[in-house]
Order: sequence, then C-alpha cells, then structure tokens
Amino acid sequence: MFKGKARAYTNIALIKYWGKQNETLILPMNNSLSLTLDAFYTETEVIFSDTFNEDQFYLDNQLQDKKATAKISAFLDIARKKAKTTQKAKVISHNFVPTAAGLASSASGLAALAGACNQALNLELDDRSLSRLARRGSGSACRSIFGGFVEWEKGQDDETSFAKQVPSDGFEENLAMVFLLLNEQKKDVSSRDGMRRTVETSSFYQGWLDSVEADLTQLKRAIKTKNFQLLGETMEQNGLKMHGTTLAAHPPFTYWSPDSLKAMQAVRELRNNGVPCYFTMDAGPNVKVLVQKEHLATVQQTFGDLFSSQQVISAFAGPGMTIIE
Amino acid sequence: MFKGKARAYTNIALIKYWGKQNETLILPMNNSLSLTLDAFYTETEVIFSDTFNEDQFYLDNQLQDKKATAKISAFLDIARKKAKTTQKAKVISHNFVPTAAGLASSASGLAALAGACNQALNLELDDRSLSRLARRGSGSACRSIFGGFVEWEKGQDDETSFAKQVPSDGFEENLAMVFLLLNEQKKDVSSRDGMRRTVETSSFYQGWLDSVEADLTQLKRAIKTKNFQLLGETMEQNGLKMHGTTLAAHPPFTYWSPDSLKAMQAVRELRNNGVPCYFTMDAGPNVKVLVQKEHLATVQQTFGDLFSSQQVISAFAGPGMTIIE
Repeated sequence: MFKGKARAYTNIALIKYWGKQNETLILPMNNSLSLTLDAFYTETEVIFSDTFNEDQFYLDNQLQDKKATAKISAFLDIARKKAKTTQKAKVISHNFVPTAAGLASSASGLAALAGACNQALNLELDDRSLSRLARRGSGSACRSIFGGFVEWEKGQDDETSFAKQVPSDGFEENLAMVFLLLNEQKKDVSSRDGMRRTVETSSFYQGWLDSVEADLTQLKRAIKTKNFQLLGETMEQNGLKMHGTTLAAHPPFTYWSPDSLKAMQAVRELRNNGVPCYFTMDAGPNVKVLVQKEHLATVQQTFGDLFSSQQVISAFAGPGMTIIE
Repeated sequence: MFKGKARAYTNIALIKYWGKQNETLILPMNNSLSLTLDAFYTETEVIFSDTFNEDQFYLDNQLQDKKATAKISAFLDIARKKAKTTQKAKVISHNFVPTAAGLASSASGLAALAGACNQALNLELDDRSLSRLARRGSGSACRSIFGGFVEWEKGQDDETSFAKQVPSDGFEENLAMVFLLLNEQKKDVSSRDGMRRTVETSSFYQGWLDSVEADLTQLKRAIKTKNFQLLGETMEQNGLKMHGTTLAAHPPFTYWSPDSLKAMQAVRELRNNGVPCYFTMDAGPNVKVLVQKEHLATVQQTFGDLFSSQQVISAFAGPGMTIIE
C-alpha cells in the first residue's frame, strides 16, 4: 500500500490559455501566465493498493460517479505507467472553497493529485516533470504546481510543454485578487468545449494567436518592472480579447452575464475615480479584480455594496503544490 | 429661392457597416445590408437663397451650434458644387422619434437632406446618385434612400460606392423589429471613433473582413428563400462578431450594458421556448429584436415585462426617401 497527500492552490490566468494544439496530450496553442492564489485550494490523498478492485474517487466525502471517476482513472493510468504498477487507487479529495462559490477548480484538484501520486508512487519527479504530469489531467493544473507568477510554455510535445515560475522579486506580495461570485446560470458551454469551438470556427482565433505573444511579453515586462498599471491593463486587454473570440465562433456564445457587465463598468468607474484596479474573466460569469493591497478595502467595499459581501472574496498570492503528510 | 422637402426613414443593418477605407469620401471596408424601418424618420426642408449670409440649421425647432452646422454645411457644399451655386441655405429638420428614445439617427437625417437638396437644386439625381450623395453626409444614410432590404456596395471610389434595393418578393412585409431602448449611459466611444479605432488597432479586424462577405452571401440567400431562421441567425452572428472586434481594440471597449446582456439572454430564452426571434446591436446599448409578425405580441410582452413598455417600440419595414411637398 502506497500513500501520498498534497495540497495545491487555484490559479488565475492573466494571459489566457485558450485553445489546444493537441487534445490528448493537452498541449496549448499559446503560452499563458497566471498568478497562484491562496483563497481556494484542494487537498488530495491517494492510496494505491493491490486490495482495490477498481479506482474510487471521493470528492468532499461523496463517492463520484463513473464519468468523474473515469477522468481520474485516465490520469492515474499515466502515473501508474511511470511507476510500472497496475494497482488500483482510492482518491480522497477535498475542495477548500467558500461555500457555494461554484469555483471548484480542476486546476488545484489535478495539481494536488499529481503531487500526491508523485509521493505515493515514489516517482521522484521534479517540479517541471510534475507540471507536465498535472497538465495531462487538466491543462491549467500545470501552473498550480508553482506559486506566484507562473508561465506555461506551450511547447510542441509532452516533453516541452510545462509551467515554470516567473521571477518577480516579490512583486506579487503587494497584490490581491478580488473574486466576484456572480449568479452562475447553468453553464451552456464548458471551457473545454468553448475553446474547441473557438479554435475550430472563430474567424477571430488567428487574430488571438497573432497577438497573444505580444501580450505575454508586455505582461512579463510589467512584472519585471513592477509596473502595476501595465500589468493590469495587459491582463484586462488579454482577457477581453479571449472573450471576444467566442463572439465570432459558430454558433457564437458568451460567458458574460448582466452582472459581469455591471462589474466591468464598476471597475472602470473605480479607475476613473483614481483607484487602480483591473478585471479578468474565465469561462464563466465571475469577474476577478486585480488590485494592490493598499486599495483592496475600497474595492471590497465597492463590490460589497454593488452585489453583496458574500459574493466578494479576496485572495492573495499563494504557494505552489506542497506535500502535506 | 429654391426649396425642397423630403422624408427618410432610419435603417438597421443586418450585416454591419464597420470601418472605412476612406474617411473623406466615406467608403466602407465591407458591403453591408439593412432593413429600412417605419418607426423613426426625419423630415427635412432646405431653402437656398441669395438673401442668406450663412447656412443655418434648425433641428426640432432649435437653431444648432457652429459644430453641428459645420457638418451640414460641408454636406451642402457637395450639393452646391453639383448645382454650381454658392447660395447659403436654411435647413429645417424634424426627427420623428418616440420621446426620449435617444435614437435620432444620422442615417434618416442625411438621407432626407440629400433628397431635399436634390429637389431644391434641381439636381435630377436618380436614386443611385442620391444614395452616393447621402453617403457623403453619413455612411449609413445611403441605405435610407431605399425601402425594404438594402445593400450598400462598398465600391472603391465615390462613383462605385452606393446602396441599392435587394429584391425580396415582399419577405420583409411579414417582419417586425422591436427596439429595446435601454439606459443609454453617456456614450464613451462614438460609432465613428469606434470603427476607426477598431480598423487601426484590433487584431480581430482582419477576421471580420475575411468573414463578412460570407455572412452577406448567406443573408441574401435567406432573403431569397424567405428563410427567417437563417436570416435571424446570420444577422445575430454578424452583429455579435462586429461587437467582438471592439474587445481586441487598443484600448478595448464595448457598447454593451448589463441590460443589453439581459435582453440577449431573454431572446435566447424566447427561442428555447419556441418563439423564433433574433437580436442585433449597433454602436450603443440598445438591442433590436427581429421577429415575424405572428410572434410580435409575445416579444413585446416579454420585453415589456423585463424592462418597461415605454422601452419597447415596434417597427415594420419602411419605405425609401420620399419628397413630401
């Protein structure tokens, strides 16, 4: 019997991952860059044993159905192959997410599972290899292996597609990300389906690819020079551009809700009133607002008034995946 | 003293005009296709006389300021040149628009002025030449010279850029357009500035140009085959795509408000409930819903409940510019 247990934090992309060059290996079309955050995380324990007849996956104390378990099994197979074992596993996972946040992230989940497997099976993978392993479970999970600013190099094969920390001289320590949990209607289009449809049908996708490299370079320059305005503007522009690609897909779709627009307008108004803050969005209506710590209270207050304080959750830069046993 | 008086109706583009190849001549980057509507119109009288010392422009009984008058004068100069006269003019214009609709359109205004000048100065321009003249005042005005479905051929110079009616065998007689007058915040970006910024800076603009021709072909096929679903889907997709281009501009911008999103969601919901209707938007937060007459009452009711009945105005296909004296 082999056991491992790990914790990993969620991350939010400032330069978005949007589209795969290889669906099986989960190789992205473009480099992305994220900030790992401390507010939401997953703890996962994995036990491999000869005594198990099949993989079992418990999430928040609930045994998961065949479909969810099959996804985990596919990931475990990759780890088992590395360890040259066929032992089945029990996976026990807990998401530490504010109640009803609807933010359970596959990024933190798969990064934690990768770390737990590494320990349980004595794979002795270094962080880069761990990142590659996590990537196979969920693309953005490869970034949650690391803390702070993290870049995912798209690469061109399994070997060359991995995340790595971006040197920042502690710039992220002065930052906060405010999550606005907006009414999540049932999601029409998953992020996986959304990016696939966009790659295959959007007449804007080439424009995205042609310009995302320049966004990334600019964002890295902002980190290097600790230029918060440049960081925020670049993040906001890149996020809007990602969401723009979906409007030219066939059929078109959007992840925005009326409240998302309200939040964007409020961010612009805050800026007009001298409070520097910038938004980004992912494959859903929630809005995330990047702000320096000195203006955090103002931003929290503004959105607490606009929505409700329960919908406003603040996060700070978080660490990478850690073994917790 | 020479007098002319004309009425012209507004038009809504189903395939959008978005970007100029020539700012002076107002030559567009792509063909567009509109439906002329009967709900909003402008009546304009123009009087040329040796006794006037300068051009005067009255809009809804208000003498307009230098800036607004200068725009009209520039247009009058084009007409005067054609007539080989230097007489100054008095322009008396009335917008027939529901109170506070905020929908006063330069399209109907300049089309009416072109018609009035044609009469006053005995220019004897045919509709095509009138359309070219109206275009010089405001691009989309060239389409308001005609009724029903109208295509604006982009052309490549002043001579070849004009609108013409699209044969439809009366298809438009069964259609209605419901205008949702949503809270117009002060507009950050005029349509003129918005299209210029998009052409110059949006990484999606090429994708727009590359695909708009196919949209146009599809929409014309929908008209030809009287296929309402295809008409609506194509219009909605083209409109969303136009609005997508602004999200990749530098700096990015959007004309959408929270209520715009609410309206889009309601349109999708109506469709899910078996009521075929489709939306489009222009350079502002208002949403226009295309529907067949048989479903008009349902659509009016839905949006009257969602917003208020004062914000819901229905229009039917309208005629072209007419001399009314």
